Amino acid sequence: MAQEILRKEETLAMRKKLIGQSCRLFYSEDPVKIIRARGQYLFDENGKQYLDCISNVQHVGHCHPTITKAAAAQMDLLNTNSRFLHDNIVLYADRLAATLPKKLCVFYFVNSGSEANDLALRLARQYTRHEDVIVLDHAYHGHLMSLIDISPYKFRKLAGQKECAPLPDTYRGIYREDHPNPGQAYADTVKDVIEDVHKKGRKISAFFAESLPSVGGQIILPQGYFSKVAEYVRSAGGVFVADEVQTGFGRVGHHFWAFQLQGDDFCPDIVTMGKPMGNGHPLACVATTAEIAGAFTANKVEYFNTFGGNPVSCAIGLAVLDVIEEEDLRGNAVRVGAHLKDLLTKLKTRHELIGDVRGVGLFVGLELVTDREKTPATEAFPFYIRLKEEDRIVISTDGPWENVLKFKPPMCFSMENAELVVECIDRILSVHFHSLKTSKVCQTCRKHFNCIRQSQVVTFIFRGRDTEICT
Amino acid sequence: MAQEILRKEETLAMRKKLIGQSCRLFYSEDPVKIIRARGQYLFDENGKQYLDCISNVQHVGHCHPTITKAAAAQMDLLNTNSRFLHDNIVLYADRLAATLPKKLCVFYFVNSGSEANDLALRLARQYTRHEDVIVLDHAYHGHLMSLIDISPYKFRKLAGQKECAPLPDTYRGIYREDHPNPGQAYADTVKDVIEDVHKKGRKISAFFAESLPSVGGQIILPQGYFSKVAEYVRSAGGVFVADEVQTGFGRVGHHFWAFQLQGDDFCPDIVTMGKPMGNGHPLACVATTAEIAGAFTANKVEYFNTFGGNPVSCAIGLAVLDVIEEEDLRGNAVRVGAHLKDLLTKLKTRHELIGDVRGVGLFVGLELVTDREKTPATEAFPFYIRLKEEDRIVISTDGPWENVLKFKPPMCFSMENAELVVECIDRILSVHFHSLKTSKVCQTCRKHFNCIRQSQVVTFIFRGRDTEICT
Repeated sequence: MAQEILRKEETLAMRKKLIGQSCRLFYSEDPVKIIRARGQYLFDENGKQYLDCISNVQHVGHCHPTITKAAAAQMDLLNTNSRFLHDNIVLYADRLAATLPKKLCVFYFVNSGSEANDLALRLARQYTRHEDVIVLDHAYHGHLMSLIDISPYKFRKLAGQKECAPLPDTYRGIYREDHPNPGQAYADTVKDVIEDVHKKGRKISAFFAESLPSVGGQIILPQGYFSKVAEYVRSAGGVFVADEVQTGFGRVGHHFWAFQLQGDDFCPDIVTMGKPMGNGHPLACVATTAEIAGAFTANKVEYFNTFGGNPVSCAIGLAVLDVIEEEDLRGNAVRVGAHLKDLLTKLKTRHELIGDVRGVGLFVGLELVTDREKTPATEAFPFYIRLKEEDRIVISTDGPWENVLKFKPPMCFSMENAELVVECIDRILSVHFHSLKTSKVCQTCRKHFNCIRQSQVVTFIFRGRDTEICT
Repeated sequence: MAQEILRKEETLAMRKKLIGQSCRLFYSEDPVKIIRARGQYLFDENGKQYLDCISNVQHVGHCHPTITKAAAAQMDLLNTNSRFLHDNIVLYADRLAATLPKKLCVFYFVNSGSEANDLALRLARQYTRHEDVIVLDHAYHGHLMSLIDISPYKFRKLAGQKECAPLPDTYRGIYREDHPNPGQAYADTVKDVIEDVHKKGRKISAFFAESLPSVGGQIILPQGYFSKVAEYVRSAGGVFVADEVQTGFGRVGHHFWAFQLQGDDFCPDIVTMGKPMGNGHPLACVATTAEIAGAFTANKVEYFNTFGGNPVSCAIGLAVLDVIEEEDLRGNAVRVGAHLKDLLTKLKTRHELIGDVRGVGLFVGLELVTDREKTPATEAFPFYIRLKEEDRIVISTDGPWENVLKFKPPMCFSMENAELVVECIDRILSVHFHSLKTSKVCQTCRKHFNCIRQSQVVTFIFRGRDTEICT
């Protein structure tokens, strides 16, 4: 495969014509064409290098040679479906089991986090014989029909109606840092939802939560929250599903799974995993208990996933686990993540625009506000565009107000990378966004906006979609 | 990756412990461990060779070096998500577009046929703003929650309740070969379903059908059926979805897509594709019209599929298309498929057990019956086990009564392979199943069965699950 076959304009023109426009491009006003990548670096068609702060899928680094070698070797040997006996699927399940509490000992291999969450939902409903699902506000669990229903991040826009508990965000949620026990307080909101459901004569099949809510704004959950929620949910006959699609495989550093941040006394009933699992290869999984798996088997209906758990997927999965260990990527996540957080926290003392710095390992969020009342620095926030344009740093925003810069880089992200990003953020804040105390109203678009540089003409690019010229 | 790491008993023991038992093994009483494959041949841990008649996923042959090479080269270069511009996705979409009617010009890349069908359902519902789906009886469209609902093959067992039209099976369906116009007659059954739906005050979003129903029993649809159904469905404001997950990419030989067997005047509104697309790599796609894609874009909700359309998947997809062309695999499907059908048809004249031989290209079914009243030779049919045990031929059964031997081999299946399989079927029919005119009742299990060899003790293995000793 040649590195570039079409000129960028041609690629873009064909893309617009041939690919559904619901599939959006990063920086849609000026998309980036990436033709090569290595480690934490992306290279465009002119050989320009970008530092990648967001590719959590390419977990052990882009195009890691160990992964490519394992994939090619297995592709050359065998790639049947899992109806034939093969060593890879069982060896891989065994390796995954070793990372999880003993209770989570049965595995189903699938092709995407969405397929994993869909199956988790089936398992929960089959086991509990209940229907209703409780999710966290702003959650995202996948693109399938069953999951849009349980993803407020999406269904808000699509008129879905599942039960929603408040996002346990101790920075701007209903209970904050100053609350004596936010874990308990937020868990009690789930209890309230359960009671509401029961009042309607319905029953809870599952509580679904990302172990660290990501599109919700890189949220670190308060201690004790999951244990208490699990207690309430199980009392109601439901199961606890931890969605580790974004957060698993050591991203949080000290722990292999982010749910383990909630303490050793907590164990989910179902764990779903995906994105980083195959370093880009479509590979995902559901882990559950023998009881839940047994109930699913008891319905006598075969679960067959054509590609799930094939020898190539599992060879790649095994290689990813090897590299995480061999290169001590969890250790790296601990060290670099702490350094990044530390540098950002120092930056916070000098820039009022920084409202909060939070994170664990290489899962870090920087929440931007316009004032000490925590007004989100939102909509008109061209920050991540500037980082791309001026510094060739690829980063993105998330959270309900799109005001959280999120870091979830490949796990080989270095100390120097962290320092560079923080330097660039510092410079952009200093040069372009030093005067943010007053809000202004754009005379052209009549939109209220809070983030404007001092010069009179500004091009706003929000989520790469809209351009508004304000004078 | 070593070819074998565990002894077969260990692999099996670990599999039982670690992998959900809903994920079934072929020949579960005596599963086969396959460690290597090439072309149309599988090899077990002792180096024994099996002829593969069923791996339609490994479309251009197991472990084709061109595919492995393309995958490894692209894995070494780049494997980001499709939010970055890349040539592969647009070049691949362009190549696919060239195989389809002009109207089908917008593509969404996903990871499995199930994801494709789920998205097709979303597209149909978004475009039509209607809800109800009509499917064919015995259809299977995938393992996701949304698809079990529209898969009678599965939902029968799980108490689903979607609208079902009769399977247009001219061998044993409600209208048969002797009907003057079965295409029209079966299409009218869909019209009846539409009217029923309307009577309930509901509306049709889509008619979903495999272009050649596979688990329904390798059914070849009567001419004119799809055109007429499309007319009725569109009149009701619905769209026509052709599920080509099993049948696309030239399996039927003369045509690239099986829906094209229904004539040039027929074009679906949505086509889903999967299994053979990546020769084992998780790759699938939805193709649709600009109008339907436009309606989906208009909801302003991003469709993001993490792995869908990544550069590696598309490189593999492109390589598969190349090999189909370079090795004239469609020509091979025409020639070998015709030879196979011809040989099986000759066999039919000598074995009353053969009720019907049908197929097109390398999609062939052999329907087994116990008498000229077409009583399905079902349940106790150890035929495919014998083919494995005695001849090392891997084949399976399908259809509502599990009495259809199905052929859907890798497309490099040879004339000699076809001759060998037919010889073996001939021998098994002659030696073991020569006397089938009387039905008997098993004295042990009290089951009625129709297929028994003359000796007094028979071990029955049905779908590799149950063993019943009958005397």
